Amino acid sequence: MIRLTTTDPRFDADFAALVNARREADADVARDVQTIVRAVRDEGDAAVAAYTKRLDGHDLAETGWRIERADLLAAYEGLPLDLRAALELAAERIAAYHTKQIPADRDETDSVGVRLGARWRAVDAAGVYVPGGRAAYPSSVLMNALPAKAAGVERLVMVTPTPKGQVNPLVLAAAHLAGVDEVWRIGGAQAIAALAYGTARIKPVDVVTGPGNAWVAEAKRQLYGVVGIDMVAGPSEIVVIADGANDPDWIAADLLSQSEHDPTSQSILFTDDALFADAVADAVDRQIGELSTRDVSRQAWDANGAIVVVGTLDEALPLVDRLAPEHLEIACDADVAEGLFDRVRHAGSVFLGRHTPEAVGDYVAGPNHVLPTGRRARFSSGLSVLDFMKRTSFLACDATALAAIGPAAVALAEAEGLPAHARSVALRLGA
Amino acid sequence: MIRLTTTDPRFDADFAALVNARREADADVARDVQTIVRAVRDEGDAAVAAYTKRLDGHDLAETGWRIERADLLAAYEGLPLDLRAALELAAERIAAYHTKQIPADRDETDSVGVRLGARWRAVDAAGVYVPGGRAAYPSSVLMNALPAKAAGVERLVMVTPTPKGQVNPLVLAAAHLAGVDEVWRIGGAQAIAALAYGTARIKPVDVVTGPGNAWVAEAKRQLYGVVGIDMVAGPSEIVVIADGANDPDWIAADLLSQSEHDPTSQSILFTDDALFADAVADAVDRQIGELSTRDVSRQAWDANGAIVVVGTLDEALPLVDRLAPEHLEIACDADVAEGLFDRVRHAGSVFLGRHTPEAVGDYVAGPNHVLPTGRRARFSSGLSVLDFMKRTSFLACDATALAAIGPAAVALAEAEGLPAHARSVALRLGA
Repeated sequence: MIRLTTTDPRFDADFAALVNARREADADVARDVQTIVRAVRDEGDAAVAAYTKRLDGHDLAETGWRIERADLLAAYEGLPLDLRAALELAAERIAAYHTKQIPADRDETDSVGVRLGARWRAVDAAGVYVPGGRAAYPSSVLMNALPAKAAGVERLVMVTPTPKGQVNPLVLAAAHLAGVDEVWRIGGAQAIAALAYGTARIKPVDVVTGPGNAWVAEAKRQLYGVVGIDMVAGPSEIVVIADGANDPDWIAADLLSQSEHDPTSQSILFTDDALFADAVADAVDRQIGELSTRDVSRQAWDANGAIVVVGTLDEALPLVDRLAPEHLEIACDADVAEGLFDRVRHAGSVFLGRHTPEAVGDYVAGPNHVLPTGRRARFSSGLSVLDFMKRTSFLACDATALAAIGPAAVALAEAEGLPAHARSVALRLGA
Repeated sequence: MIRLTTTDPRFDADFAALVNARREADADVARDVQTIVRAVRDEGDAAVAAYTKRLDGHDLAETGWRIERADLLAAYEGLPLDLRAALELAAERIAAYHTKQIPADRDETDSVGVRLGARWRAVDAAGVYVPGGRAAYPSSVLMNALPAKAAGVERLVMVTPTPKGQVNPLVLAAAHLAGVDEVWRIGGAQAIAALAYGTARIKPVDVVTGPGNAWVAEAKRQLYGVVGIDMVAGPSEIVVIADGANDPDWIAADLLSQSEHDPTSQSILFTDDALFADAVADAVDRQIGELSTRDVSRQAWDANGAIVVVGTLDEALPLVDRLAPEHLEIACDADVAEGLFDRVRHAGSVFLGRHTPEAVGDYVAGPNHVLPTGRRARFSSGLSVLDFMKRTSFLACDATALAAIGPAAVALAEAEGLPAHARSVALRLGA
């Protein structure tokens, strides 16, 4: 953990280093992924099976390619009742929030008689990647699948690697609840390529979303354009702005809720109270020892944690904008939090007040937990129904409307040296 | 040009070949681009100047890095009056259409007292790439720059290569009209890298849009994530659905308005009238000879043109959806066009009725002419203000609201093995 104070003469340099620190692996996996992607494109299922055997250690001919819907239902019915109720509450709230994101169509006729509009439709099919192993989270299944269903996607496909054939029943239960239509027991770059190009067994999809390791991320990047993808995701981050009236234990827990994800996760506190900063630092150290995730949390906090003491909380705002954090908590009285939030330019998701820990947003609040990381909140947004929809613009002129705007089109087409463009308008003008 | 008839026994195979034909260059430029991008990242302006000298044939120290705003104004004032009026009409209509795209913010409190919302903001800075040479179109400047300005982008940067130092006055005039803030005399992958990483002279931007050659497209793809980008663009396409009551000359001109763009452009007519098909084919051949763009038009029509005779126009719809065309004209009586359009699933932009040639949409109608190509209308949309904005979701709970939804978050966090997540909520529940 580093501790900075804005009045320190070295502050500017130290804070710039924090902003520019690269926590993302620069893994040179591009060539491996290119080989895998081409093999799946050219050889289909045979390549998928061969990579699954080599990388996940099981033979799809034995374990089976698909996980059947009956297995999803069985996993769901096997859940303890409290967990089932929690998943159901989460699913209900996430679906409600995302359904309201569906954009309105447009259809207007302007003053010269030109009809102008835009129409939104869901993509036909979407694929959701769900990692195996440590990062196999049922909440991720809900957060990726439910926006697709809210958008109206008719065919929702899930792919998930099952190392040595093992599946995660919580993930299958969430897939049941989210209404996933097909689940394939495959992962890695080969699964992304199979979704993008399709194989004899797996029909192609139009959009692929969901988190994954460096191979999965690189495969999505290489296949961007063949399919639509969500934003590349990096290590998780939280920034907390807190005054001295908070309980240091609460804020420490919030910081650790990111640190425990991964050794590359980052947690940063901004406070205007140096004594409170001390108290939070102590509470973090004490709480880490009590966590089953203590090793990861310790590594992440030591390497990427920071506490920044500012003169006033206002002073934190331009610094926070430079970080453009995935998650931003503003733990102050409601009116103060509101005033600060008004002036935040760049953040993926914001948590206002003393009773809104970021983790409540990870699971049950409703907004998506798939959010831009690595300063990408400067230009990108959390996952939404828009990632599973596309807009068709449209236009209709009658002879009168075309007479009003057509001559300008003819002039511009001629200036650009495109005579057939000009002619297609001019003929209709009777020219 | 190929001619197909749905009743032909080979139709399915022939149409599948048309759908799957690859018109995009598979140029292996990835390694070159990686070298350029890394050089610009590491050496900044010096690398930009060296590549400009080598590839564009001029020395930036002599020609100057920037094109000044006074030069933009002078270009604008030098335009013939009719052209100036045409550009102004186009700019006004494009700005009006895109301003209405600005999405509404959300701020709601649900039945258990959880406040949920989403807030849209413009990115701080955007870069627009404008190609030099044949494809330097003032209409492209308007279509990329005006949505950024409508979104509220404060710093709008244009980059455009000026081979041997030559600039295109129409492009500069359009930049003036669109309110571009900075213009740099650079192009290629080096310009994209300069915008993404920034250099000593050029401050970085958050989003880069605009068409370009294979190097520009690959640089955007490699830098996706460092900056936001618009969709990769391929060769232009038009599909026309027309009954026999159209003037064959009008429809031929519409088909040629895509063919004249590039030898890889594609134009396809669907009609239910075989004699009309003959008449359009004849009209295309006759008109080509009259165009100054005859060589390109001839190559494109011969290689990628198609006329498909269908039994009924309804029969065309599933075929059109498989093509997911960039542009779709439905040239029929208004009610028939409307009925067909209702059932179209995949198209970038649709032009309804007999008096709406696609070219009117290229210039002055208002909707964007930057549209998904190469079947990408299955999952992506035309350029819009959304490409220059991002959404911050937000959440506020008081103690009562957290008591309602918090326990489910605790249960799910524990099930996922994330104890700090659970604790950050549980502490506030008084547990």
